[in-house]
Amino acid sequence: MTHPEPSPATRKFQKELNAGTVSFVLLGVLSHATEPLYGYQIAKQLETGSEDVTMMKQGALYPVLRSLEKNGLLASRVEPSLSGPPRRYYEITETGREAFAQWTTIWHHNTRFVDAVLKGSYHV
Amino acid sequence: MTHPEPSPATRKFQKELNAGTVSFVLLGVLSHATEPLYGYQIAKQLETGSEDVTMMKQGALYPVLRSLEKNGLLASRVEPSLSGPPRRYYEITETGREAFAQWTTIWHHNTRFVDAVLKGSYHV
Repeated sequence: MTHPEPSPATRKFQKELNAGTVSFVLLGVLSHATEPLYGYQIAKQLETGSEDVTMMKQGALYPVLRSLEKNGLLASRVEPSLSGPPRRYYEITETGREAFAQWTTIWHHNTRFVDAVLKGSYHV
Repeated sequence: MTHPEPSPATRKFQKELNAGTVSFVLLGVLSHATEPLYGYQIAKQLETGSEDVTMMKQGALYPVLRSLEKNGLLASRVEPSLSGPPRRYYEITETGREAFAQWTTIWHHNTRFVDAVLKGSYHV
């Protein structure tokens, strides 16, 4: 029928993994953007990047965007919109670019570490 | 001189990334082990897998091992040791094997997602 419900331990793992991932990809999208983007545009970029559009629901992005701005990695401004409520546009700051460079190094290091351990442990 | 101190945001990112990673690699090491392992042996496996032995300090493993056992993914028993205090040996449970299979899928999915977004976002 359907997939079995993930166990609490699996949900915890997914949640932990997501926590770091969401900040990283948001920073990545904005570090490559050529102009400030608002939430829906950012969410669209994430969909483009993945077949699994449900992975990162748009509503889940806003707290992370706010947190990144609070830490000085993003800056935002609100602009009126003709088609609805005002939109908050985000762009990356210089601090954000430095953080993204560091995080990219950390990300690749972490991925290599996991690959190496999982490969190495076959010989235990 | 030395590397600059990582910013609070970078420390938070590293911490979030580590949270999921540690559980995953511990489960991976024990899923491939042919016999129960105690903490020091597990830490050794992690060193083998990586040039960076400081990434996962031995002391940081114990709370995660306990948490995995509490969730039924690992089982442990204490055995006396000739050379020191008794040792707690860990092995993976059937539930743990199922979780590791799921986590491996989640891990690869997450890695592909990040790669795709970062690649895609170059064209923003």
